[in-house]
Amino acid sequence: MQVAVMTAPGQVRVEDRPAPAILEPTDAIIRLAATCICGSDLWPYRGVEMVDGPRPMGHEYAGIVEAVGSAVTTVRPGQFVVGSFFASDNTCEICRSGYQTSCVRREPAAPGGAQAERMRVPLADGTLVATPGLPAEDLIPSLLAASDVLGTGWFAAVAAQAGPGKTVAVVGDGAVGLLAVLAARQLGAERIIAMSRHQSRQDLAREYGATDIIAERGDEGVRKVKELTGGLGAHSVIEAVGTQESMMQAIRATRPGGHVGYVGVAHDVQLPGEELFFSHVHLHGGPAPVRQYLPKLIDLIWNRTIDPGKVFDLELPLERAADGYKAMDERDAIKVLLRP
Amino acid sequence: MQVAVMTAPGQVRVEDRPAPAILEPTDAIIRLAATCICGSDLWPYRGVEMVDGPRPMGHEYAGIVEAVGSAVTTVRPGQFVVGSFFASDNTCEICRSGYQTSCVRREPAAPGGAQAERMRVPLADGTLVATPGLPAEDLIPSLLAASDVLGTGWFAAVAAQAGPGKTVAVVGDGAVGLLAVLAARQLGAERIIAMSRHQSRQDLAREYGATDIIAERGDEGVRKVKELTGGLGAHSVIEAVGTQESMMQAIRATRPGGHVGYVGVAHDVQLPGEELFFSHVHLHGGPAPVRQYLPKLIDLIWNRTIDPGKVFDLELPLERAADGYKAMDERDAIKVLLRP
Repeated sequence: MQVAVMTAPGQVRVEDRPAPAILEPTDAIIRLAATCICGSDLWPYRGVEMVDGPRPMGHEYAGIVEAVGSAVTTVRPGQFVVGSFFASDNTCEICRSGYQTSCVRREPAAPGGAQAERMRVPLADGTLVATPGLPAEDLIPSLLAASDVLGTGWFAAVAAQAGPGKTVAVVGDGAVGLLAVLAARQLGAERIIAMSRHQSRQDLAREYGATDIIAERGDEGVRKVKELTGGLGAHSVIEAVGTQESMMQAIRATRPGGHVGYVGVAHDVQLPGEELFFSHVHLHGGPAPVRQYLPKLIDLIWNRTIDPGKVFDLELPLERAADGYKAMDERDAIKVLLRP
Repeated sequence: MQVAVMTAPGQVRVEDRPAPAILEPTDAIIRLAATCICGSDLWPYRGVEMVDGPRPMGHEYAGIVEAVGSAVTTVRPGQFVVGSFFASDNTCEICRSGYQTSCVRREPAAPGGAQAERMRVPLADGTLVATPGLPAEDLIPSLLAASDVLGTGWFAAVAAQAGPGKTVAVVGDGAVGLLAVLAARQLGAERIIAMSRHQSRQDLAREYGATDIIAERGDEGVRKVKELTGGLGAHSVIEAVGTQESMMQAIRATRPGGHVGYVGVAHDVQLPGEELFFSHVHLHGGPAPVRQYLPKLIDLIWNRTIDPGKVFDLELPLERAADGYKAMDERDAIKVLLRP
């Protein structure tokens, strides 16, 4: 079967590999309806993370169950499922507290890559959620988004305590940032400030519920947020980038006592303790426990209350994965959907 | 009048200075019943913070109001009062959200020092809280503790979300750490792990409600906390030191989804973004908004429900302030009370 493999920074090719098989009784095999390229896939693509040997890529997935191991009881062949990028048992104390991405049995959900025709998912019972039936074709991009970017944006908004009466600022206009806008709106935020310099992303942010746009970055962006909030800063700030600049921008744009929800995978970030201390902010984030939110997110998509699939502004066949990486790297596309 | 002044690291002397006067209509003048030396006073004493010129010391205070400015309405001469180390108006949006130490009009509450016979307190209405009457002599140390260390330990416990069903670990066995144990107990924590290597401090921790003691530090201390918590880490960890080691110890001892409350003033601390990201902890702290808790804390002390004054294990006349600094620096005393 076909699978996208990164061989070196900037080098992605689609190669033929053996189809995955059930290895553990808790596994499931999925035939992918759609998969996609994640902002975090760009870290190795850009050489920020090391690539040691050909690496099968991708961790976002939605598709039809083809086979399950003997211990799997909650999903069955023929069902359409969505799952998180980390596999979890969903029964341990950490899972039950809502942090499935720190499950004591956590492992990658797509050990052989999800940018592929088929994939093996470990801990299928704790990881996968079936949709109410086979989805209409136009719902598939949104269901795929629930696998990571929507769930991640949602967690960021929850971590930032977005809600009624709150002013929420969002740092980062990638798919996660845009879906954090959507999540903040769903959670009832009063005012949502999207920070973006790109017209098409600003437009989608507005469509998803942003009430204000700030094009400035860094300290100038912080100044603008304060200008819009009586000098105090936002109640809730979502960080969806993962750089030193974006983290500091998020912390500084938050009022004392406010909440920063950060979901950009931090790379070479060092937070200065003394500034953080006097900032008085709450800081929470990490790998989003998407599994916690999947039933709710699937429901919102199924009922067509939300349309997170709009973040996919380029769709390519899987064999053109390399073009998809290039488009995202050059910011020609917000997010690329790949069809196996 | 007498006031303790630091002239250089390790150099404290008591000198004669003019008594303070009302400068602003919102000021009050207090005659101190008692004052004390703070762990944070040791930073300049040890040369970690710069001392540029003679600096009047102290920011913890309890005493009798002698005079108030024309705009002061909530306290009056003759009343016994306690106040926070930062003055606040207690009316701005940040104060009303419970973060008085980030008040938009915040300023030091003891601009002329509190290790003195008298002091001027700005923004008296928003900063000071009167006790129900003149306190019995034996309540004065506890009321003084409410001015900073008790309020700070309380905030740390709240920030760490100590409460029923929770296992709380406390990093730091100074007065703040010990009073964080007391606060966690008052907030209903199920299990409280005090981390201390000193017998006398361990004893007071147990008296205040600690159920377990861990003498190990750093990663070994973290290992012990995990051993006591089924391998997961504590739900709530309080950091009351302010060093790189203590912050990392606190973060690493917390389970995913758990809460770190940090109140040690961070010095030369850099938090590694990637480790923080994958730790999945909530991080909150900063200068404790003591003013928020003062009415409740005064009530608990007045009713003799709590006895935070026990952290003062050395009492000296103000003129012997230098001996008090030495005793705290050498850890011969947990906390030194000074009588003007």
